[in-house]
Amino acid sequence: MLRSHTCGELRITHVGQTVTISGWVQGMRDKGSLLWIDLRDRYGITQITIETENAAKELVETARTLGREFVISVTGKVVERYSKSDKIETGAIEITPDKITVLNPALVPPFTIEDETDGGDDIRMKYRYLDLRRNPVRKNLELRHRIAIETRNYLDSLGFLEVETPVLIKSTPEGARDFVVPSRMNPGEFYALPQSPQTFKQLLMVGGFDRYYQIVKCFRDEDLRADRQPEFTQIDCEMAFVEQEDILNTFEGMVRHLFKAVKNVEIPTLSRMTYADAMKFYGNDKPDIRFEMKFVELNNVVKGKEFKVFNDAGLVVGICAKGAAEYTRKQLDELTEFVKRPQIGATGLVYARYNADGTIKSSVDKFYTEEDLKNWVAAFDAQPGDLMLILAGEENKTRKALSELRLEMGTRLGLRDKNKFACHWVIDFPLLEWSEDTNRWHAMHHPFTSPKPEDIELIDSAPGSVRANAYDMVINGVEIGGGSIRIFNKQLQSRMFDLLGFTKEEAQAQFGFLMNAFEFGAPPHGGLALGFDRLCSLFGGADVIRDFIAFPKNNSGRDVMIDSPAPIAQAQLDELAIALKK
Amino acid sequence: MLRSHTCGELRITHVGQTVTISGWVQGMRDKGSLLWIDLRDRYGITQITIETENAAKELVETARTLGREFVISVTGKVVERYSKSDKIETGAIEITPDKITVLNPALVPPFTIEDETDGGDDIRMKYRYLDLRRNPVRKNLELRHRIAIETRNYLDSLGFLEVETPVLIKSTPEGARDFVVPSRMNPGEFYALPQSPQTFKQLLMVGGFDRYYQIVKCFRDEDLRADRQPEFTQIDCEMAFVEQEDILNTFEGMVRHLFKAVKNVEIPTLSRMTYADAMKFYGNDKPDIRFEMKFVELNNVVKGKEFKVFNDAGLVVGICAKGAAEYTRKQLDELTEFVKRPQIGATGLVYARYNADGTIKSSVDKFYTEEDLKNWVAAFDAQPGDLMLILAGEENKTRKALSELRLEMGTRLGLRDKNKFACHWVIDFPLLEWSEDTNRWHAMHHPFTSPKPEDIELIDSAPGSVRANAYDMVINGVEIGGGSIRIFNKQLQSRMFDLLGFTKEEAQAQFGFLMNAFEFGAPPHGGLALGFDRLCSLFGGADVIRDFIAFPKNNSGRDVMIDSPAPIAQAQLDELAIALKK
Repeated sequence: MLRSHTCGELRITHVGQTVTISGWVQGMRDKGSLLWIDLRDRYGITQITIETENAAKELVETARTLGREFVISVTGKVVERYSKSDKIETGAIEITPDKITVLNPALVPPFTIEDETDGGDDIRMKYRYLDLRRNPVRKNLELRHRIAIETRNYLDSLGFLEVETPVLIKSTPEGARDFVVPSRMNPGEFYALPQSPQTFKQLLMVGGFDRYYQIVKCFRDEDLRADRQPEFTQIDCEMAFVEQEDILNTFEGMVRHLFKAVKNVEIPTLSRMTYADAMKFYGNDKPDIRFEMKFVELNNVVKGKEFKVFNDAGLVVGICAKGAAEYTRKQLDELTEFVKRPQIGATGLVYARYNADGTIKSSVDKFYTEEDLKNWVAAFDAQPGDLMLILAGEENKTRKALSELRLEMGTRLGLRDKNKFACHWVIDFPLLEWSEDTNRWHAMHHPFTSPKPEDIELIDSAPGSVRANAYDMVINGVEIGGGSIRIFNKQLQSRMFDLLGFTKEEAQAQFGFLMNAFEFGAPPHGGLALGFDRLCSLFGGADVIRDFIAFPKNNSGRDVMIDSPAPIAQAQLDELAIALKK
Repeated sequence: MLRSHTCGELRITHVGQTVTISGWVQGMRDKGSLLWIDLRDRYGITQITIETENAAKELVETARTLGREFVISVTGKVVERYSKSDKIETGAIEITPDKITVLNPALVPPFTIEDETDGGDDIRMKYRYLDLRRNPVRKNLELRHRIAIETRNYLDSLGFLEVETPVLIKSTPEGARDFVVPSRMNPGEFYALPQSPQTFKQLLMVGGFDRYYQIVKCFRDEDLRADRQPEFTQIDCEMAFVEQEDILNTFEGMVRHLFKAVKNVEIPTLSRMTYADAMKFYGNDKPDIRFEMKFVELNNVVKGKEFKVFNDAGLVVGICAKGAAEYTRKQLDELTEFVKRPQIGATGLVYARYNADGTIKSSVDKFYTEEDLKNWVAAFDAQPGDLMLILAGEENKTRKALSELRLEMGTRLGLRDKNKFACHWVIDFPLLEWSEDTNRWHAMHHPFTSPKPEDIELIDSAPGSVRANAYDMVINGVEIGGGSIRIFNKQLQSRMFDLLGFTKEEAQAQFGFLMNAFEFGAPPHGGLALGFDRLCSLFGGADVIRDFIAFPKNNSGRDVMIDSPAPIAQAQLDELAIALKK
C-alpha cells in the first residue's frame, strides 16, 4: 500500500494515528535541528517535520537528499502543530515520520511548480506534464470535468440520450477545411474527421431518437488564430418535434443549471434580442450586455452643419460613456489611437464632454454651437459627467468599429467583471450572407438551417432578407453556442443547395443520404451546439481556451510536447498508396 | 407546439383531456366505419380511433392518405378504450382526433420497422436511420447511454477526473497500424489517430492528476475481422500511487456497480486466476467460467499402451462433459468434425462414455482394457452418465483446440446462458511473448507494462519467464478489459525498449517525451481499459458489437450509408502536399 491518506486529508481528528502519505516534495527547509518537508499531491499539502536530533540517522540522511519534485512516500505519526497554519487545510497537523521512501527522484524542473510560475508559455507547453502539476491548471481541468458531468446528468434527466457519432466520416467541402484520413483498405479514398456531427444528429432525429446529445471532439483544418485549436469539443444537441421556443427553453435551462450547480450563480431567464437589434444597438451579433452603452444614431442630429466628415458619412453613431467626462486629453488620444488601429479601421474619433458643471465641450466645437451640442446630449440622454464618443463613415464598418470602442470603454470603466455573467439569446439571424469573395450566397449558419416559414416566399426574390430560425447563445459578449431549426423536407433542402451554388450532382454526391432520409418520414427537428472549451474558460473566468485543454496544440497546430505532427515511414505511405509531393 | 405528450405517456388518468401527440404511423387498419392508426415515437405507441361516420370528412380523407412511417401530428381527446390492450403501456386509452396534420409524408420503407424486420444486414446498414427506428436497435443504444452515465458517475464519486486526451497525435509503429492525418500546415508531416490514450494518461499521472478516466474513441487500421470496427470506444482509466491490488478492487467495484445499477444483477466478488492456471485448466487466457469442465491432463494415465497417437503426443488432455454419455454417434461425429476444422486443427477426437449402467465404452477400446478406462474415469472424476472427450498432440495447439471444444460443449449443454454472468480476473501474465514471425520478443500487453519486481532479475537470463503486473477482466469468456502496473523509471523503460528491438534512437524519437517525463518525478501508477462496445453488447446479451454502435462500419471499413471513405478533390490533395500513387 503506497498511501493510507492523501496529502489533503489529515485533520486534528487524525492526531495520534500512524499514516502513510505519498506525493511530490513541494519544498524543504533545513534549519539544522529542525527539517520541514512540504509534501504535495492533487488533494493538498501536508507538512512533515523532523527533529533531526531525535530522529533516526538514516531518516535524516534520506530527507537531506530530497529535492523539489522528488516522489516520496512517508510513514509516520500525525501530531498537532505548535503553530497552526490556516493557509492550508491540513494546517492543524504535521507528520513525524518513521520512514521516508524515495519512490522516484526528480531532475530540477525547468520552471517552478507554483501557482505563479516563472516558466514562459513555450517551456510550459513542452513540459506540459509539469505544468499540469500546478494548481491553477489542474483546477481548470477539474472545472471542465465538473461541467461535463453536470451537463450529462442534466440532459439525461430530460431524456436526452448520449449517442456517439462516427469520427471517420466523409469530406464535404462546404464550410471550413476538413482533416482527411487516407484509407488503406480503399486505396485512393479518404475519410474525413467531422467538423461537427451535424448530419448524423439529424439522421438520429430521422431515426426517432427524439433527444440526442454528445460531448464530442470536432476538427477543423483552419489557419489557427490566437485561440483556435484544430481539435475542439462541443456539447452537441438535437431534438425532434420541437419549435425554436422549445429549444431556447431547454438549453437556457441547461446553462442556468450549470451556473447554479458548478458556480452557485443564479442566472435570470435569458433575454432575447433580434439580430437586427443586436447590430443596430451594439454593432455586433454577440453583444456583451453586462453593460448598456447602446449605440445612438445621430444622422438626424449632426448633419447639415459645416462638419464635412459627418455630412459625408453614411452613418454617424455614438455611445455615451457614463461618468467619463473627466477623461484626460491623454486618455482621449489613446481612444483615438485605438479606433484608428488597422483592425478597427475608423478614421477618427469625435468626442463631447458633458461636464459636471453642465457645460459641454466637444472636439468639433468650431462646427457646432452650444445649442447643437445640447441636441447631442438629448439624443444620448447624457447626464452631467458623461462622455459622448462618436464615429462616422460607411455604415457597417462604422458599427463594427464602434462596437470595438464600446467594448474597450466597457473594459476601461470596469463594466466587464469576469465574475458577473450576462447571458442572452440573439435570434432571427439572416439565412444567407452574400460573399464578395465567391460572388454568391453563403449559409450564415449552415446549409441545413430552416428559413422562417413567413419569409420563405422571399427566397427567390430577396434571398438576403430571408430570416432563419437560427439563434446564438451569448454570454458576456462571447458566442457560446448556436443552432437552428433544421430543414426536414427534401425539396426545400435541395432548393437551399441550389442557392448555395451546388450543382444537383454535387448536392446528391455529398448530402444525398440526408435528402434521401428526409423522404422516409423525417420529423421537424432542431438543435444547437455549445463550444465546450469556450464555456469552460468562461466559467473559469479566463480568456484563453488553451488553459482548459489538457494537451493543447500551439498556433501552428503542433503538439510540442510529443513533437507532432511528424514524418511517417515510407512503408506507411506505401501501404496507404500515397506519396509526398516534392 | 408540436406535442403536449409523447406516444408512450397517456394513461387512464388522462381521459377527457385534449392532447397533441406526434410521431410515425406504425400501421393503419381501415374497417370502413372504424379506422385505427397506431402512432409511434421513441416512448411508445398510442392508438388513434376514428369513427368515420361521426368524424369530419376532411379528417377521414387525411387519415386515408396516410402510409407507413408518415410523420403526423394528432390533436384530439383521450378516451377510455372499450377493449383494453395490455400489450402496450397506453393500452387503456385511445385518442379521438379533432385534427390530423401530415408533418412529412414517407416513401414505403425498404424493410419493415418492426422488432423482427424483413430487412437483411446490407439494406439495414444502408438505411441505418430507418433501422434505428426499430425498438431492439434503439434499446441497445439506450443501454449504452445508461452504462456510460453510470460509469461516469461511479468514477466521479471516487474522485476520478475525466480528461480529454488529444485525437491528433503521433504515429508509433509498435502495435497495430495507425490511421494517419496529413498536416496541411506542416507539409510532409502527419498526425496519427490514437490506438489508445496510453502515453497521455501516463503523463497525466506524472502531472499529478492521480485518478483519470475517459470514455474515448480509439482507432486501429487493422484488417477487419467479423466483429472489429476501425473506430471503437474504451473506458480508459489510470491511477497513481497504487499497486495491482488497488486497481483490481477499484474496477471490480465499478463493474459490480454497473451490473447492479443497469441490470439489477448482483455479481459476487471477482475470483482471480493466474495466466498459468487459465492455460492449464482452460487452454485459454480468457476462460468462460460460467461452467467448470476443467482440463484433465492424461499423459500419466494413457501413455505406454498400444495407442500410438497418445504415445507420440506431447500432451493428452481431456474434458468431462457431465451427462453427455448418451450422445449419439451422429453427435459425436459432429464433435469430431468440429475439432478437425482448420481453425481448430485437431487431428481427431477420442471419447469414452461412462454409461449410466456403470459400463465404459470408448472409441479406442481395442487399445485399452476396462481397467485402463476405469483409470480414465478416476482421472476425470467422472460420474455415470458423463462423456469424456480427449485430444492429443503438440501441447499448445492441443490446449487451444480443447478450449474450443470445451466452449462448444458448454454451448451444447446449455451452460452458457447469456443472462448469467461470470466475471473474474486473469492475473500474472507473462511480460513478453516470442514471435516466430519477427524472431524477437514482443510485449504481451504493451511496452509500458511493469515486470513483477521479484522477476526482474530474470529479464536478461530468461525474458520469457518474467511475469508482468498485468491483468485482464474476463466476463463470460470475453476479455472485457485489461491493464497493468506501468514502468515509471526511465532506465527500466529504456531496457524494455531494448528487449523489444528498438534502437536507442528509435525509442528516443517515439517515446522520448515519456522517458523524459519519468525523470521529473513520476509516481508509481497503473490502470486499465475496458472495451466499451464489447461491454455494452455483453450487457445486452448479444454477440456482435455492431448492434451497439449507432453508425457502424462494415467489414471493409466502409460506412455504406454515407458512402465513405470516398475520393477527395485534387485541390485538397494539393493543399496537403500529397499525391495518390498510381
